[in-house]
Amino acid sequence: MSSSITRRAASALALAVTLASGSTALAQTAPLSAEDSDPNVMGWMQGFPPPPDRMITQPDSVYFSFPRLRWSFCHLREFLPTEEISRGLGAPIPLDYVAPAEFADLRQQIDAVTFTPQNSDEAMTWEESLFANYTDGMLILHRGQVVYERYFGCLEEDGKHAIMSMTKSFTGLLAEIMVVEGTLDDTALVRDVIPEIGDSAFATATVRQVMDMTTGVKYSEDYSDPNADIWLYSRAASPLPKPEGYDGPDGYWEYLQQVAPEGTHGDTFHYKTINSDMLGWIISRVSGKAVTELASDRLWRPMGVEQAAYQTVDGKGVPFAGGGITAGLRDLGRLGQLMLNEGELNGTRLFPAEVARNIAAGGDRSKFGDGFPTFGAGSYTSQWWVTHNDHGAYAARGVHGQTIYVDPTAEMVLVRLASYPRAQNGFIDPTSLPAYQAVAEFLMAR
Amino acid sequence: MSSSITRRAASALALAVTLASGSTALAQTAPLSAEDSDPNVMGWMQGFPPPPDRMITQPDSVYFSFPRLRWSFCHLREFLPTEEISRGLGAPIPLDYVAPAEFADLRQQIDAVTFTPQNSDEAMTWEESLFANYTDGMLILHRGQVVYERYFGCLEEDGKHAIMSMTKSFTGLLAEIMVVEGTLDDTALVRDVIPEIGDSAFATATVRQVMDMTTGVKYSEDYSDPNADIWLYSRAASPLPKPEGYDGPDGYWEYLQQVAPEGTHGDTFHYKTINSDMLGWIISRVSGKAVTELASDRLWRPMGVEQAAYQTVDGKGVPFAGGGITAGLRDLGRLGQLMLNEGELNGTRLFPAEVARNIAAGGDRSKFGDGFPTFGAGSYTSQWWVTHNDHGAYAARGVHGQTIYVDPTAEMVLVRLASYPRAQNGFIDPTSLPAYQAVAEFLMAR
Repeated sequence: MSSSITRRAASALALAVTLASGSTALAQTAPLSAEDSDPNVMGWMQGFPPPPDRMITQPDSVYFSFPRLRWSFCHLREFLPTEEISRGLGAPIPLDYVAPAEFADLRQQIDAVTFTPQNSDEAMTWEESLFANYTDGMLILHRGQVVYERYFGCLEEDGKHAIMSMTKSFTGLLAEIMVVEGTLDDTALVRDVIPEIGDSAFATATVRQVMDMTTGVKYSEDYSDPNADIWLYSRAASPLPKPEGYDGPDGYWEYLQQVAPEGTHGDTFHYKTINSDMLGWIISRVSGKAVTELASDRLWRPMGVEQAAYQTVDGKGVPFAGGGITAGLRDLGRLGQLMLNEGELNGTRLFPAEVARNIAAGGDRSKFGDGFPTFGAGSYTSQWWVTHNDHGAYAARGVHGQTIYVDPTAEMVLVRLASYPRAQNGFIDPTSLPAYQAVAEFLMAR
Repeated sequence: MSSSITRRAASALALAVTLASGSTALAQTAPLSAEDSDPNVMGWMQGFPPPPDRMITQPDSVYFSFPRLRWSFCHLREFLPTEEISRGLGAPIPLDYVAPAEFADLRQQIDAVTFTPQNSDEAMTWEESLFANYTDGMLILHRGQVVYERYFGCLEEDGKHAIMSMTKSFTGLLAEIMVVEGTLDDTALVRDVIPEIGDSAFATATVRQVMDMTTGVKYSEDYSDPNADIWLYSRAASPLPKPEGYDGPDGYWEYLQQVAPEGTHGDTFHYKTINSDMLGWIISRVSGKAVTELASDRLWRPMGVEQAAYQTVDGKGVPFAGGGITAGLRDLGRLGQLMLNEGELNGTRLFPAEVARNIAAGGDRSKFGDGFPTFGAGSYTSQWWVTHNDHGAYAARGVHGQTIYVDPTAEMVLVRLASYPRAQNGFIDPTSLPAYQAVAEFLMAR
């Protein structure tokens, strides 16, 4: 990477941070650039033992802080108990690649694709956007073939990366499969599926409201607010022994049993992770399988993936259905292709086409609100983000820059794994979503 | 399983416990039988959530206690941070099986093989021995083909099981490969390889003494003694946050830096796990790779295994080289076959034949002592147990009944994974080693 690209990337980051925060203060404390914070450059966990100042250990305030998180995102299982999402024992079904010469050509051409970031007048190249967004892995499939694949930072082709809230889209897809196949009634109330939800605000929500996150439940998820419910939730969920005197809920499901109401079920979309864990509980109860087992049975095994994935668990062995999965880049590409193909992969039907069509069609746009200005006037359904743009693109999305982006019009699937310094995708979308559209248009002209 | 087999198995267990403990007191508190303690019968961790009395959680005094351990041995990663031993991305290389009809015949014939347990006059069948030993998985290869394969309890063909101290044999094999290949000098002193070992008793031991566990180091490993050094070691090694006021060593390697001397290096064999972790540190320092990465590069990837394995880690990410690996039954069979084939598998040479020959030849028998009466007058070298019996059999062994047993004369490899109620193999050998010999003789007559 040339130093001019580095400068441009850092500059774009500062711009994004500045724009999104509405002030210029952060520009002065801009984090290390993607190149300077590369974990191999930083030297994290190298040596036997590593030097003390290059060691990454518990607690999560250490291993999950930037720039350490750029290493930790590929090593979560080394800090946390996990459950496997088994790939089974068969041979992986290789991805189809364009011929090597064309692959090399396309790499050059795609790297040079230009686009204009949101709220900017200055054009940026695709390759610059990779660094602006602290990309760890980028995979693009076009018409079912891999046309672009690059690895950075902590990630390699045989490694895995935390996918954060893209986990929700696994949970939601599994639920949508069950709904379409008739084993889960999305009009049922949560209390009818899980009686012991008790007086929780979830009790009177429908399964569909949980799937689409239109429940009226109290839960704040501002990662930058240390008193946000997300941190209380994290304490409940931690698999580590609870601190002396802790009297809060133990585990995801105990937390869900005591959620207070806020607003009215069905009124509007509120992005709250507890819905995903509520949904995980629902589909486990109905199917008699943990979400890891469901993901293995319905997706990972029949997809012919290359690597087992894994999912973090709470102190009672319940997988984190709202954010716990770590997986390989290509395997996530397979999942995107499965969605683009409306449930078929490698000539095998894994679920009814209606499942993918329902998700691609999106949710109720009138309920989406304006809380995600960088994403635009989209919708959220079955735990997937739908752009409703000209291409009908939809996506799984996770904090710090994770995405599976499916563009049916361009017949393109794009997976990005990243370790952007800040959690919010609002900082990352400006140099991402326009870039995806530009690459989609480039590919359509092939 | 017939109830008569159950009774016989329980009876054999009580006998073994009684004989090995030298009293009859334990016979009165004999643990649940293999059938009654089957985790599927016990109902551990079934349901969403499981009933409170069927939940298995931290701490290890819970999840590692019988009968819970019969579930936990297949689920260690759900309690502990782990590192992957990658299988890479290629297709597994299938094991060769005898034809299905012959396989079914052999199953019947082998199950009916009889033998006389040590210190007993009453014959036992092979199948009875499986239950007597709380077997979770049994695989037998003869002349390179699978002739017998059964799963019980927590284990299935696509599952994995803790291999306990068989991990040492991974570490020792990797070290022996490095010695034979000339990258590790087994005559060097530990302090010359790892200067910061400081004043530890290990400093003046040779690498070979560490490999063969003839070091003179203070370390008690009586699992039934709550004050044994093994438990101090466990506290150092725990990846969980240290308790308030804890001022002991943090991690395996800090522990090793403060080991006191006891006896004289080279005098005699003492089975002490800290040697294995010392060896893990040595081979990591010399190779520049973690033991997980070495095991992946030299064994798991080129062996064409079916499943990634994993290894527990301490709070600094150091894999437990003395006992942390969990793996699949068949993949351990591949490792045994690799040893039997003296370094070749599927037509590929993975390491020089001298490596396996050195191990099979055994260590200095005069140093073995009489601490393992059920194993007999054997030897220990490069972290493998060598019987020096008529067949020249040698083995990897782990507490609670784990073994990879290689019989070069019978061209037989046998892998048993188990969850015997007590740790000590002295309780398990009496109904195991004579059974292996009997099956070996049966197979030689095929």
